[in-house]
Amino acid sequence: MKSEYHGVSRREFLRTARNLGGAVAASVLGGVMPSMASAEDSGTFRRGWGMHSGNNANGSDVDVVILGAGITGLVAAYELRQRGINCLVLEARNRPGGRVETIRGGDLIEELGKSTYCDFDRDEMLYFDAGAARIPQHHVGILSYCREFGIPLDVLVNENRGAYVHAPSAFGNTPVRNRAVHASIRGNLAQLLASSALAGTLDGSFSDGERQALLAMLYQYGDLTDDFRFVGSTRGGIKPGTGLLAPKVAASPLSFSNYLATDALLQYFFQIAEYYDQQATMLHPRYGMDAIPRAFADRLGHLLRYQHVVEEIRRTQSGVHITFDNQGRRGSVTANHAIITLPASVLRTIPNDFTAPVRSALNDTHYTSAGKVAFQARRFWEEEEQIYGGITWTEQTITQMWYPSSGFGAGDGVLVGAYVFGGEPGDEFAGLSEWDRQELALSQGERIHPQLRSNVRSGISRSWLNTPHSLGGWSETPPSEVWNRPDGPFIFAGDYTTYMSGWQEGALASAQRALHLLRESVEG
Amino acid sequence: MKSEYHGVSRREFLRTARNLGGAVAASVLGGVMPSMASAEDSGTFRRGWGMHSGNNANGSDVDVVILGAGITGLVAAYELRQRGINCLVLEARNRPGGRVETIRGGDLIEELGKSTYCDFDRDEMLYFDAGAARIPQHHVGILSYCREFGIPLDVLVNENRGAYVHAPSAFGNTPVRNRAVHASIRGNLAQLLASSALAGTLDGSFSDGERQALLAMLYQYGDLTDDFRFVGSTRGGIKPGTGLLAPKVAASPLSFSNYLATDALLQYFFQIAEYYDQQATMLHPRYGMDAIPRAFADRLGHLLRYQHVVEEIRRTQSGVHITFDNQGRRGSVTANHAIITLPASVLRTIPNDFTAPVRSALNDTHYTSAGKVAFQARRFWEEEEQIYGGITWTEQTITQMWYPSSGFGAGDGVLVGAYVFGGEPGDEFAGLSEWDRQELALSQGERIHPQLRSNVRSGISRSWLNTPHSLGGWSETPPSEVWNRPDGPFIFAGDYTTYMSGWQEGALASAQRALHLLRESVEG
Repeated sequence: MKSEYHGVSRREFLRTARNLGGAVAASVLGGVMPSMASAEDSGTFRRGWGMHSGNNANGSDVDVVILGAGITGLVAAYELRQRGINCLVLEARNRPGGRVETIRGGDLIEELGKSTYCDFDRDEMLYFDAGAARIPQHHVGILSYCREFGIPLDVLVNENRGAYVHAPSAFGNTPVRNRAVHASIRGNLAQLLASSALAGTLDGSFSDGERQALLAMLYQYGDLTDDFRFVGSTRGGIKPGTGLLAPKVAASPLSFSNYLATDALLQYFFQIAEYYDQQATMLHPRYGMDAIPRAFADRLGHLLRYQHVVEEIRRTQSGVHITFDNQGRRGSVTANHAIITLPASVLRTIPNDFTAPVRSALNDTHYTSAGKVAFQARRFWEEEEQIYGGITWTEQTITQMWYPSSGFGAGDGVLVGAYVFGGEPGDEFAGLSEWDRQELALSQGERIHPQLRSNVRSGISRSWLNTPHSLGGWSETPPSEVWNRPDGPFIFAGDYTTYMSGWQEGALASAQRALHLLRESVEG
Repeated sequence: MKSEYHGVSRREFLRTARNLGGAVAASVLGGVMPSMASAEDSGTFRRGWGMHSGNNANGSDVDVVILGAGITGLVAAYELRQRGINCLVLEARNRPGGRVETIRGGDLIEELGKSTYCDFDRDEMLYFDAGAARIPQHHVGILSYCREFGIPLDVLVNENRGAYVHAPSAFGNTPVRNRAVHASIRGNLAQLLASSALAGTLDGSFSDGERQALLAMLYQYGDLTDDFRFVGSTRGGIKPGTGLLAPKVAASPLSFSNYLATDALLQYFFQIAEYYDQQATMLHPRYGMDAIPRAFADRLGHLLRYQHVVEEIRRTQSGVHITFDNQGRRGSVTANHAIITLPASVLRTIPNDFTAPVRSALNDTHYTSAGKVAFQARRFWEEEEQIYGGITWTEQTITQMWYPSSGFGAGDGVLVGAYVFGGEPGDEFAGLSEWDRQELALSQGERIHPQLRSNVRSGISRSWLNTPHSLGGWSETPPSEVWNRPDGPFIFAGDYTTYMSGWQEGALASAQRALHLLRESVEG
């Protein structure tokens, strides 16, 4: 969850909207900033930092230790290496990518106090992107690396009008097709506005010709009758048929009172795909998002050290001294500079020599508690319900179900049975056992797909709040100004230091800034 | 072009809308039927016709000749063969599929009075679906065959908010991103309705609470300010940035007067993806639509005879007598029954023994003159304009440009540079030389993508009006009742005999009916 919903936890959002009522809630929400930012129309992502290896103004070699091999650390290391700058990356895990994690059969999923093997069949289509799972087409930085590394990309369906909205508060317990919801919103709004236009009570300075033009537009916008009423639309679905009879509207339209009964969260569901970074079609690497970090790691080779857990971050006269634990052995690295990409949630727990403003900014950074459950299952949603990719939204704790956007019709698929984020539901999810998380996803998912349980072969979950070295999904706090300058030899980076928190593009933007700051430091 | 636009040619549509004015045009359009119909919610496509081979009531073997190996003829033959019924398919072309045609480098494209080789490089990603190019996810019949035959399917992006709308009549000569158009429509409509709500001039019986709920909804629907005005939205695009600065709205919103200036055709563009059979994500077989007819043809083997051009269709005492030309040699087939799947546009030109109502229905079936131009080109639209799949709409003759939905970032792609349909533009396009068609697409396409011409390596076009054995794109005429009964030994099928004209699912539905009618004929 990002963009216009950013910075408000799910439960807070609901509470605000419910307690304050619609119009008041609106002004409360007015301060919520979208987290989206990138370089549409700027053409190719620019990577010319112009820094070169060799002697700098001080006569010493540039020497950089990078903490963390998520996207931020990988990009920083790759670009330094391209310029021949000495660097080394310390990574706590046994894999690159951080919150870019693709889970497959046989993988061991470690969380605080639990570890579980993923029991999926081993098949290239059976992968689960437990963290980052989609790339907006305007994220030109991460896409330029995909192009450079030859990573095949496919369409990720982010909105499918054939998926469901399950909203007991508005539509009762029966899931409604997304297309029926949209057809009725448009129809109802168009009818309401048309009736004002016909009654001559329209606001402002509409000429008669403009009023006619507006009516013609509303007729099409809402699929209204000739007398500008909304009585249902084939857009919302048609009656089963063979094509040999003229098509009929499937069902009565959802009445406007349904929408007036909805809360702000539901209304958010209804327009998610309008957001710049949540459009109906996005992108994903074929066979899993970890193709991206793996491509970086392949190019870094021995510069990347796994299972090096940072234990102390110290300032010295000439730079930094980093202490780490490597599978029980303690070691250390000294360097002129450190690019520190660990999440704020982790970094603030490590003994350090940061100045007070940095410590304060780290402590003020609040992470959401995102988690997912995935199932290997027969693709019943395709054959039986005509759903090919996309997301079902529900008011239940599980919040979202994601249908796979590829491998259609080919054996089993991986269904994301729950994507829980924010506030109490996220925290509760983190605290559940593996079994209880899967049971939650099954029992709530059955209310949308009664055939779910009998078609599931295996499940696995991930709570980012409960994951060592992450301790959260993504930051909900706007970035502090302190990240725009080095703290002596320390340069801070990571998606949380940008307005694109939770996106690989944010990680990349922060790496880009880190290299700028490094160059400025070196050049004095 | 199908669905709610069905039955009105492009130019007629424009004329109607422009001459009559909005609200009047609306009532004229009210009679236009959508052509959509299929089996959503009906689950698996049913194929149990229960017909078996062997002796029938008359003591003679069932013996069926099928004219045409488009989807209709292929499905009919495949299902008859599965039941052990003797049949033979006569096909005029040297390939199966009819208007399902995938063009690749080296293919010879024959039209009336011209033939051109496609000069694309030979690469699996460089294919051009000159006819059928997309499958709605609710077309359960054709999708069930894809599943049965193991044809890999990918997402086809049918609407991309990152693509352009080019509408000189409303927005001037600068192409506008689709997302900017949509953000402004929603914002403007929401503001207008909110101002009625605030002024208390809303129609009907809104309680104060409902009025508040409506305002809260409009706030989100249109991305309004706290005082319910629309002043632009990040949904419409953001300023280029690095993610290190808070995002800013890219541009002033498109004012409402733009929309009031639009004609009915443009307004249709704005909501195309709302239609049941035109939703933002659809499906297509990987590497080209002809995977479907080829899979049928592989299974039919020698039952399928290419380059057999039907010359006469005669009625005999016991059945049918079909005369054909096979590369200059005349031959004939006799059979008990004929399933005739040739397009009405072709069928009415062949000497026949049909009854008057059939001849009349054939003559009354009007075909649209669809055509496309495709280019092999460097994928500048991806790297330079962040467009991954989808369709740009323009008021120019070329009407649509399609960006490929797969092979992202991988070398060249096939850009559909023009998709012209209906009325005068389609007829004009048919009459152009190969060179003039490509030049039309280049010169008009340059107004949207100035870098187009310099990035194109090769082009090819197809006009279906000008294509032998097709003579048109698809029927714009609602199906006649006469197709619901045999005409003696003749059974008529093809997409034009259904309400799903122009869709493979319509072809399939007509084949299903043909087999029912055949069984009834045989069983007496």
